[in-house]
Amino acid sequence: MEPILFAGRLVASSARETLRAVDPATGEELDERFPVSPREELGALAAAGKRAAAVMREVPAERIAEFLERCAAEIEADADALAARAARETGLPLRPRLREVEIGRTLDQLRQAAACVRTGAWALPVVDRERDLASAYTALGGPVFVIGPSNFPFAYNALGGGDFASALAAGNPVIAKANPGHPGTTGMLAQCIARAIEQCPTLPPAVVQMFYHCAPEDGLWLAAHRDVAAIGFTGSRATGLKIKEVADRAGKPVYLEMSSVNPVFVLPGALARKARKVTEDFVASCLLAAGQMCTNPGLVVVPAGEAGEMLLAAVSARFLAAPPGVLLGPSSPEHLETSIEILCRAGASVVVGGKRAAGPGYRFQNTLLRATGAQFLAQPELLQTEAFGSASLFVFAADEAETLAIAEQLQGSLTASIYSDDDGSDDVCAARLSAILQERTGRLLNDKMPTGVAVSPAMNHGGPFPATGHPGFTAVGFPPAIRRFAKLTCFDHVRRHRLPELLQRAVGGTRD
Amino acid sequence: MEPILFAGRLVASSARETLRAVDPATGEELDERFPVSPREELGALAAAGKRAAAVMREVPAERIAEFLERCAAEIEADADALAARAARETGLPLRPRLREVEIGRTLDQLRQAAACVRTGAWALPVVDRERDLASAYTALGGPVFVIGPSNFPFAYNALGGGDFASALAAGNPVIAKANPGHPGTTGMLAQCIARAIEQCPTLPPAVVQMFYHCAPEDGLWLAAHRDVAAIGFTGSRATGLKIKEVADRAGKPVYLEMSSVNPVFVLPGALARKARKVTEDFVASCLLAAGQMCTNPGLVVVPAGEAGEMLLAAVSARFLAAPPGVLLGPSSPEHLETSIEILCRAGASVVVGGKRAAGPGYRFQNTLLRATGAQFLAQPELLQTEAFGSASLFVFAADEAETLAIAEQLQGSLTASIYSDDDGSDDVCAARLSAILQERTGRLLNDKMPTGVAVSPAMNHGGPFPATGHPGFTAVGFPPAIRRFAKLTCFDHVRRHRLPELLQRAVGGTRD
Repeated sequence: MEPILFAGRLVASSARETLRAVDPATGEELDERFPVSPREELGALAAAGKRAAAVMREVPAERIAEFLERCAAEIEADADALAARAARETGLPLRPRLREVEIGRTLDQLRQAAACVRTGAWALPVVDRERDLASAYTALGGPVFVIGPSNFPFAYNALGGGDFASALAAGNPVIAKANPGHPGTTGMLAQCIARAIEQCPTLPPAVVQMFYHCAPEDGLWLAAHRDVAAIGFTGSRATGLKIKEVADRAGKPVYLEMSSVNPVFVLPGALARKARKVTEDFVASCLLAAGQMCTNPGLVVVPAGEAGEMLLAAVSARFLAAPPGVLLGPSSPEHLETSIEILCRAGASVVVGGKRAAGPGYRFQNTLLRATGAQFLAQPELLQTEAFGSASLFVFAADEAETLAIAEQLQGSLTASIYSDDDGSDDVCAARLSAILQERTGRLLNDKMPTGVAVSPAMNHGGPFPATGHPGFTAVGFPPAIRRFAKLTCFDHVRRHRLPELLQRAVGGTRD
Repeated sequence: MEPILFAGRLVASSARETLRAVDPATGEELDERFPVSPREELGALAAAGKRAAAVMREVPAERIAEFLERCAAEIEADADALAARAARETGLPLRPRLREVEIGRTLDQLRQAAACVRTGAWALPVVDRERDLASAYTALGGPVFVIGPSNFPFAYNALGGGDFASALAAGNPVIAKANPGHPGTTGMLAQCIARAIEQCPTLPPAVVQMFYHCAPEDGLWLAAHRDVAAIGFTGSRATGLKIKEVADRAGKPVYLEMSSVNPVFVLPGALARKARKVTEDFVASCLLAAGQMCTNPGLVVVPAGEAGEMLLAAVSARFLAAPPGVLLGPSSPEHLETSIEILCRAGASVVVGGKRAAGPGYRFQNTLLRATGAQFLAQPELLQTEAFGSASLFVFAADEAETLAIAEQLQGSLTASIYSDDDGSDDVCAARLSAILQERTGRLLNDKMPTGVAVSPAMNHGGPFPATGHPGFTAVGFPPAIRRFAKLTCFDHVRRHRLPELLQRAVGGTRD
């Protein structure tokens, strides 16, 4: 049985149950056994994390920055082996996707977070000398429980990914739960992090801890545990809503990224003059990583009529020609099947695909569905069911009014795209649509598909409920992502030597 | 029956039930009848607010700034009459409290919010030219439902107060619910606001709407209404938790300020050398406005022994000598009675006061309770019951370890104060205590009582649950308070003329 990372050490779990990873390309179970941690073990992690938080308070920012950089360096050192293992466990392409793109992004995130810790600007320090007030975002005082998704074994991994980097940068310890889809990858990351911990003796050993799996009710118990300060979750809406409920009841900050259909609107002028670009963009975006992206374009609204039909026909041909990708795990085809069933029962019909694909492992046909605008407006909620994979619903809108009415029915999403012509003929409609979409999405795009989330301070990877739990926060992009895992603290007339390091600097040499 | 403010006009309510204000100094009902709006009426306000939000999107920032300033000017013009009415309805002192201090603060808040709207810096615009990304906080796209408290008829009034100014500054319409404790004051404010609306024809008339009262279940229904974008609430914990539950379930941002005991720690050196200052500070703070302040010091932790007893004796003498203040309303003495009963059942005993005071209207004896540290640690939750009035619990801690243990048991609070000596003898304990308190409070004070919340960009009037619903936000201080009522929006490759005004400015002349 593989060890968990507890209080700075790789130690044996007290688990009685275990789970094994699966190679989704073949359906074969891999050898290692990973512990399913019992509740007492989770409680011990929480308690160690809480004690670590108290130590972290006194650790200079520079030491935290160094730790983040050590984590990056150790991951980089093992990058080949890590990527190979992740490819085996997830079926995602080894190169460039895992080895270059995703590990590269992960290292970049850790290093950007480290740079933010050094300047401290993420904490928005404000000094009011006249009233002797100083405020800044400060650590929460307890560990952040991070739960990563199946589809990014590095960039969003609870160990080493975006929430991990953000929570640490804010000065919090992390308790990471591995995704059961890639436990071996996460176990290898735990070895990297354990080496980083060893090299940073100023930090408490429990600065990062990791367990592999637990019973769902025990996971909710840990989320509500009094020692846990906040939760970061990326995954399905069903699980996300359960976590949200217990965290809300406990009054705990919780950041959830939990599904999005990422609507794409193609306006008449764009359809007339940019159909080829739209086709290329869409096919590349929707087939990327077998469609298993949070920002997969799952809903395309096009004008009804011949041009729209031709667009769908062109896309359909490409979808038929492309081999079905390998899905992440045993439940992936089932989830797709269920979602497509819901969509069809709500009025959509399958154009291409719609069924499990032949071959070993977990595969599903590249799928396109269609519905009329009237059908969408009759069942707007069900027709926004996320089908996590290379599956998308084309909705044919009768006219501009119907297009806008569809937009008005959209739930909160991570992204929304508008393709419009370049000569102004779509401008009036685009302006109306932008206004409606802007309040329903975290990121509005023009003439671009939503996949590809740049790690930029200007990024927002977030959006209104139910895409996330709060529309004011982003999961990607430093420094804003860091502030999720911090509290605002004001120091009123507090003696200078008692201020946090950052505010001592901000206050400068003028007091006490 | 007094009119409500609906879609820009003072119009008759369809209410069948009414309520009347009460003069708390005498217990007499005042003449006017205020409508208890039925659910359909609330739905109509929500729909009008939603339509107004769509118009607001297109309104230049300058026009919103002007509107906030017009609101301030109209309130200023009626200040004498407003203050007189508020004094009648709340029993709070007319001068300087209501007329000068609170109205002055209210005008200042509106004008500071206007200044923030003009610069736009509150929205944290970020431009990444290389990746063609621009992000900023933008309006939510629906009205903000603001529910104000009884104890600040101006500065926190749902019409004209802090949440009102913040929500508007972010570009949202407001639906204000009057507090039933001062409906006449709020009705007069509605007249001021209606005049301001008339003078600002660029804004949609439903930019601000107001109703007086509703059945509690209808208020929760409105909070969860799909047209309502967010909620701002200041009031009791019981009501706050109900609002939080429905808002959380609907995935809606909700900002709650809902009770705090505001612990004050007096360390041994301070007790030995600053007892007089502590006494003066505490008496002034705890008796202010009959103790009906969110930041009233409701818990004082002092070292057990003679010096601590002398402090309590000195404070007791002052509490006995001060006449009981007039409380805000009919339920105030009852709530105090209940809280004191809970505290006593949990181990505290009354030192002075503890009973309703003689005289007309609503009054309660200035009250002090005591408990040992051991008693506190045996019932830490119950002994943090807020007693909203001039009532405070002194806890006598056996030693430093017990003092720190008490701190570890504190729930989230708006403030926490430490009094320590000036020669360093308390420094070790103060450092330990600061670390523990920092994660449990929104504002940490040294040698100062918590009442008096400056409207400063460095202020935090917030704190961990259950003081509020999220530790990252402040209800006081511009610009941060504004960001509560906004969403983060990223514009990815969006054509320049489609960007919001603020980002067009931020991007400058370099694109399209």
